[in-house]
Amino acid sequence: MELSVLQEHLARALTAVGRVASSRTQLPILNNILFRTDGTRLLVAAMNMEIASTQFVGAKISTPGAITVPARLVSDFVSSLPKGTIELQVKGTQLHISSGKYSSVINGLGADDFPELPVIDEEVAVRYSIAVSDFKQAVAQTIVTTSNDATRPVLTGVYWHSHEGALYLAGTDGYRLAERRLVETTSEVAAIVPTTSLQEALRTITDDIKEIEVLFDESQVRFRFDEAEVTSQLISGNFPPYRQLIPEKTETTVTLPRDEFVRITKIAGLFARDSGGSVTIRASEETKLLSLHSVASELGENTSEADATIAGGGSVTLNSRYLSEALGVLDGSTVIFGFSGKLAPTVLTTSGEDVKYKHIIMPLKS
Amino acid sequence: MELSVLQEHLARALTAVGRVASSRTQLPILNNILFRTDGTRLLVAAMNMEIASTQFVGAKISTPGAITVPARLVSDFVSSLPKGTIELQVKGTQLHISSGKYSSVINGLGADDFPELPVIDEEVAVRYSIAVSDFKQAVAQTIVTTSNDATRPVLTGVYWHSHEGALYLAGTDGYRLAERRLVETTSEVAAIVPTTSLQEALRTITDDIKEIEVLFDESQVRFRFDEAEVTSQLISGNFPPYRQLIPEKTETTVTLPRDEFVRITKIAGLFARDSGGSVTIRASEETKLLSLHSVASELGENTSEADATIAGGGSVTLNSRYLSEALGVLDGSTVIFGFSGKLAPTVLTTSGEDVKYKHIIMPLKS
Repeated sequence: MELSVLQEHLARALTAVGRVASSRTQLPILNNILFRTDGTRLLVAAMNMEIASTQFVGAKISTPGAITVPARLVSDFVSSLPKGTIELQVKGTQLHISSGKYSSVINGLGADDFPELPVIDEEVAVRYSIAVSDFKQAVAQTIVTTSNDATRPVLTGVYWHSHEGALYLAGTDGYRLAERRLVETTSEVAAIVPTTSLQEALRTITDDIKEIEVLFDESQVRFRFDEAEVTSQLISGNFPPYRQLIPEKTETTVTLPRDEFVRITKIAGLFARDSGGSVTIRASEETKLLSLHSVASELGENTSEADATIAGGGSVTLNSRYLSEALGVLDGSTVIFGFSGKLAPTVLTTSGEDVKYKHIIMPLKS
Repeated sequence: MELSVLQEHLARALTAVGRVASSRTQLPILNNILFRTDGTRLLVAAMNMEIASTQFVGAKISTPGAITVPARLVSDFVSSLPKGTIELQVKGTQLHISSGKYSSVINGLGADDFPELPVIDEEVAVRYSIAVSDFKQAVAQTIVTTSNDATRPVLTGVYWHSHEGALYLAGTDGYRLAERRLVETTSEVAAIVPTTSLQEALRTITDDIKEIEVLFDESQVRFRFDEAEVTSQLISGNFPPYRQLIPEKTETTVTLPRDEFVRITKIAGLFARDSGGSVTIRASEETKLLSLHSVASELGENTSEADATIAGGGSVTLNSRYLSEALGVLDGSTVIFGFSGKLAPTVLTTSGEDVKYKHIIMPLKS
């Protein structure tokens, strides 16, 4: 292999795929990055047991070939070089990299020992095109409620599924639940995508990407952004039938500016650190105030209030961190918070006619 | 105690002193912040076993008094409040804090149990006025070479001392040494200031501060910035007679742009991770190149070169991290690097007639 590439292109590709390679692994070659010529392009790829990340870089190729080299060293080295042309040359199992007055030799391993990159049959795959802004928001809104409890694998991912003509994303950790409607669809899909893979897909999006393609086969999902792809195993198992947990309506609804709700939740949370985050929320139709009360047994207590439009009234106790995280991913400037007494699930949505996102939090016993 | 203050003033003061209070301590009240009225101002103070940090905040005082409350809770609460007036009121050992719709009660401890704040006799103290930009630079240039080895306390601080009509700062960890001439002086001083206290002083400087006063008595130093003070114990003991270690001249001198030297050092350092940072530097009068060579035994090797003006020639082996840190604190755009064979101390300075800063690095055996 002998070729030249631009430093800025290669550095960007290495940074993107390098995160996947750097994961701890039992197969040492997975600490390496694969370089392989592909027509007039250089394929740069890394894998772990769950995810494969690939990037294509335009290159001037003199001799085709392939090699793998340690991810961190090659990424750091290429990132530190000045902009301009870099020469890559394979001699035996060594990669020679030079640029002006900088030259390095990196000891590698043969590309033949690198595992096969995952393949998806494009003919039969279910395929969605999604605007990047929608994708980013929907993923952020649903991964927040997924679990990291490895004993319940189906809860460690987001459930992508078709329902009544639309593609929905849903995540739950058993204490809270988020559902987001994403695009209209006539295709059938039901797949649990690992949260870690979605996070990797989010990180791989660069500013110039406007649209992303998502492909599903029986056991894999692929996120394609122009010249980059992130391919992941799906989580096997059945996602719990969550829809029945979403209340159709609530006895009390509180409407207020999101930034106000964020601020009183943050302040109440400061005093809830010693009590497992427990914050008691009161709403009163008469005073038109939403009030959050928290007690730090040894340290003191706090009451914070905000003006709100309230129908109904009562109180409910929630974990302030869950409430903060929900408010952090809601879109729009106005929040509707609904609850029905102390025991029923609470609902957070934005105001407006076309509500795409619902966030459910189970109350704490108070 | 009953008073009102502006949120932005109180939040800034609490953030500044809070860092000192949050240090782990054997005396529980030192986790608290002291509030005490002082004429028309509110004193906000925190201490640990080494440092006291105080701030004065303009206040509208109805009833004088004092209390101490847990540092982190009061800082986080006040920082989260909206801008505007905050009311503070002491009832028994509780501090009531309210602002608009936000109100908290924080359980405190009586101010009488708080240790006496340190006193410096202003009449007899040795005193320096220093421009903030000079202070920041001189401290950064010398703390970088101090040690954190608690078994040699005198090396864990910076030696402030008068010498031939000037105030000098010096730091050494036994492997490297930095000396900075700061201001002219006729006063005599010789004091070792803990690195941690200098770091705290640096963090306390706000953008509006232009000049800082430094006062020494027999056992303490005080840094005064307008309404804020950081007072620290000095380190007792004798600083090593370091001047004899600074070479008056070197056999080889290499002059090159600092950013070039930084870049080749960074790249060479990537390949030196497995060899304790060891980088071999070669200078040649004939080729006019400064060359850094490093070997990562299993991973590969690197040679990086930069054009330089060279008198003499030869090679020396240094720790690349020490070299990087030295280049990071040198001022000016041109570096002069001097060495005399493989064993003698190397010297880094900036070019120019009035050299205020010298940085010495001992070679590694190669």
